Amino acid sequence: MKQHLNYTMLCDFYELTMANGYFQTGMGEQICYFDIFFRNVPDGGGFAIAAGLEQVIQYIQNLRFDEEDISYLRGKGGFSEEFLDYLRHFKFTGDIWAVPEGTPIFPREPILTVRANAIQAQFVETFLLLTLNHQSLIATKSNRIVRAAEGRPVAEFGSRRAQGADGALLGARASYIAGCAATACTMADQRYGSPATGTMAHSWVQMFPDEYTAFKTYCQLYPHNATLLVDTYNVLKSGVPNAIRAFKEVLLPQGITTCGIRLDSGDLAYLSRKARKMLDEAGLTECKIFASNALDEYLIRDLLLQGAAIDAFGVGERLITSRSEPVFGGVYKLAAIEDGQGNIIPKIKLSENAAKITNPHFKKVYRLYNNADGKAFADLITLHDEVMDFTQPLELFDPECTWKRQTFTDYTARELLLPIFRGGELVYEVPTLQQVRDYCAEQLELQWDEVKRFENPHNYYVDLSQKLWELKQHMLTEQGRG
Amino acid sequence: MKQHLNYTMLCDFYELTMANGYFQTGMGEQICYFDIFFRNVPDGGGFAIAAGLEQVIQYIQNLRFDEEDISYLRGKGGFSEEFLDYLRHFKFTGDIWAVPEGTPIFPREPILTVRANAIQAQFVETFLLLTLNHQSLIATKSNRIVRAAEGRPVAEFGSRRAQGADGALLGARASYIAGCAATACTMADQRYGSPATGTMAHSWVQMFPDEYTAFKTYCQLYPHNATLLVDTYNVLKSGVPNAIRAFKEVLLPQGITTCGIRLDSGDLAYLSRKARKMLDEAGLTECKIFASNALDEYLIRDLLLQGAAIDAFGVGERLITSRSEPVFGGVYKLAAIEDGQGNIIPKIKLSENAAKITNPHFKKVYRLYNNADGKAFADLITLHDEVMDFTQPLELFDPECTWKRQTFTDYTARELLLPIFRGGELVYEVPTLQQVRDYCAEQLELQWDEVKRFENPHNYYVDLSQKLWELKQHMLTEQGRG
Repeated sequence: MKQHLNYTMLCDFYELTMANGYFQTGMGEQICYFDIFFRNVPDGGGFAIAAGLEQVIQYIQNLRFDEEDISYLRGKGGFSEEFLDYLRHFKFTGDIWAVPEGTPIFPREPILTVRANAIQAQFVETFLLLTLNHQSLIATKSNRIVRAAEGRPVAEFGSRRAQGADGALLGARASYIAGCAATACTMADQRYGSPATGTMAHSWVQMFPDEYTAFKTYCQLYPHNATLLVDTYNVLKSGVPNAIRAFKEVLLPQGITTCGIRLDSGDLAYLSRKARKMLDEAGLTECKIFASNALDEYLIRDLLLQGAAIDAFGVGERLITSRSEPVFGGVYKLAAIEDGQGNIIPKIKLSENAAKITNPHFKKVYRLYNNADGKAFADLITLHDEVMDFTQPLELFDPECTWKRQTFTDYTARELLLPIFRGGELVYEVPTLQQVRDYCAEQLELQWDEVKRFENPHNYYVDLSQKLWELKQHMLTEQGRG
Repeated sequence: MKQHLNYTMLCDFYELTMANGYFQTGMGEQICYFDIFFRNVPDGGGFAIAAGLEQVIQYIQNLRFDEEDISYLRGKGGFSEEFLDYLRHFKFTGDIWAVPEGTPIFPREPILTVRANAIQAQFVETFLLLTLNHQSLIATKSNRIVRAAEGRPVAEFGSRRAQGADGALLGARASYIAGCAATACTMADQRYGSPATGTMAHSWVQMFPDEYTAFKTYCQLYPHNATLLVDTYNVLKSGVPNAIRAFKEVLLPQGITTCGIRLDSGDLAYLSRKARKMLDEAGLTECKIFASNALDEYLIRDLLLQGAAIDAFGVGERLITSRSEPVFGGVYKLAAIEDGQGNIIPKIKLSENAAKITNPHFKKVYRLYNNADGKAFADLITLHDEVMDFTQPLELFDPECTWKRQTFTDYTARELLLPIFRGGELVYEVPTLQQVRDYCAEQLELQWDEVKRFENPHNYYVDLSQKLWELKQHMLTEQGRG
């Protein structure tokens, strides 16, 4: 049950004013290359996780203006009738390369490249950025939280605090890619396949004459899924004792020993240890303790360091909005144009801030893995037509401090950007969400722990080939002179 | 062109496990009252702005489970066939009261109350919270930014950094309610009527052989909407001089003197003053200067304090995600149930944190305005059936420090919560977005400047009637005794 919506009109208005401009001045057929890349990993982390490509593909396939859109645009004024007529037949006929969803990605490398005529290539900017920025943000944040939980399941609980319905649904999707075990959001399960879970709110407990009756009733209804929320009144004096009583009276006689309690307030380290002791003393050693309430990677890490007896976490607003850093700053920049005679003319965007200068030209990205341990040690960006011989030793250098050089042998190179659309046709087999999640986990295994540190991680190398570096220097000198 | 989507399945899974539980235990028809309220104003502000009610209404009107939903739920297990059959005919038949969109709202007062049977009342929790939390967050943040601009137009520019498509679309809607003048998002204009604007990206300038040609071409295409982005190469050495040349060569001969430039990087205070001087010296005194780039209320205030010559602002990621505080913490709490004999039984949710204790019972909220200056001075929460005589002097007291008392005379009371649904029927005339925006501006005029301070604002009074206060104390004592 996937709704494929037409988001054609979800574009910044300037995409349309520019498109009309290109059309009217005869520049519309000019072939352009645009790259999407980002500059900083949220939360000061060492890497991000790419997500959102499936929704980009759906967007591209659904691109079309209907008559209502045309009428609306006519009403805005400024667009020529010829252009409006052209929009009637508008579709994407270009090429797209992208890194697969679930790939660990690093600043300044292209994660998606569009080759298309000026109108098409410019037009898709807003939605492509929106989609990749949002889902990559949530995947990146979720994976930090999952790593903090050290193997304990993390469920995404944030729909009610999400920034809109898509924030909830696609946020749950992205969190599943990044390793969350489940979501509270039913529709995210139904639509994307991230398993939905949930048992009761405080109101359930309040609706009954007393807490014990609420618990007993729940156990009777759901003997195989009885996770009781124990903090409506008092966790240790009332919640846990009533839960134990209900488990013993309803579940144990049926031979059911798996059950759970959830703590949603108070000091989770202290309460979970006390509750664990009470449960164990009652013989309920298989009863799991779930914890929720304003959690994130730092709180989870601290709770575990303090010996919290928590088996699984529910994480809400701090995951679904990436509260500590709610923006993923992917940008869409012109990298090259074609001259109509088969030549690609590189373009560069200057900035007073050196880190904001773009990498020119149509490019490839290789991830390099050490054969000894299988770990990734660097990404290398090259010109699209550079012939690389990865059987030979490879010298990498820091693009800013070029005297920092290192030669690698016994490594394997893998191209990161895969063809997604070719001449407007989808040429990529879209993996299932489960496949994406598995791929993400595999790829993260190939990253050093030093890159995964929450703060001050190792700065993974993203280097340029000698040719690309020389081109960039040349263009900077030329334009600086400009 | 409004897409009314069916978001029935966008619910936390526990809404369904509880619903099935109420159904199976014969509690499904138990009438309940739930309140939505929030506890803290984002960014430490003095008030929030309610938004999202129109989408709540659409949600309620579109509530229905289709066969695909039923099949999905059957596959999850745990739901009785009788309950699944009941869902086939599920619709909302209860009552909803809410504050109109655009109303300034304060912590701890109900902004929406649901009266419905247990299944319905519980079920709508997730989507109602999601919608009101998201749009109220963005409206609240946007209004801070609009206030900082002191009358200069603010355009919402954030789609590409929004948390999903709804984040962009409904964020733009909320920002328009709160006073933004425009949005970059075309679809937000088409769908909701927040005017879309936009001219060019850096790529437009890069596509031409030189900046001047890019500017001249744009002026020829859009002589009445020529706002040129002047920071692709060098603002003062190239951008502004080329813009002046293009304006003089293309616009002035046509008698057009209104035009604009946009600064998107660098020191906006310095560059705008220098650019203003250059434009004025060229006789282009009507040329407006637009500024964008990582703006928020603090940066805008600082820029204006430093004498920046900026006429309008474009604000992106920090508005559309409310970056500094990306969560609005509205909650949905049980306030009462009915006993089937026409009696309402109040419910209260305890917490070790006094601020988290709920206000029990079915309630009304009055906003009190001083007749002398028309300004609002307090909100008063009463029991639903309290007879208030607002022609008499009114003594208010601080619900926590009850010795703080003050008597008011010569005031007017206005009920805040309006009937929206009655027995499942919409009884509210949904205002247009423009009406909501106008109402919001009017209501903000009636708030003291002290409440509008960005930091450490005056703490607006939200008080309880004597009867409600006594009921709450009584229930706390009873429950604390447990």
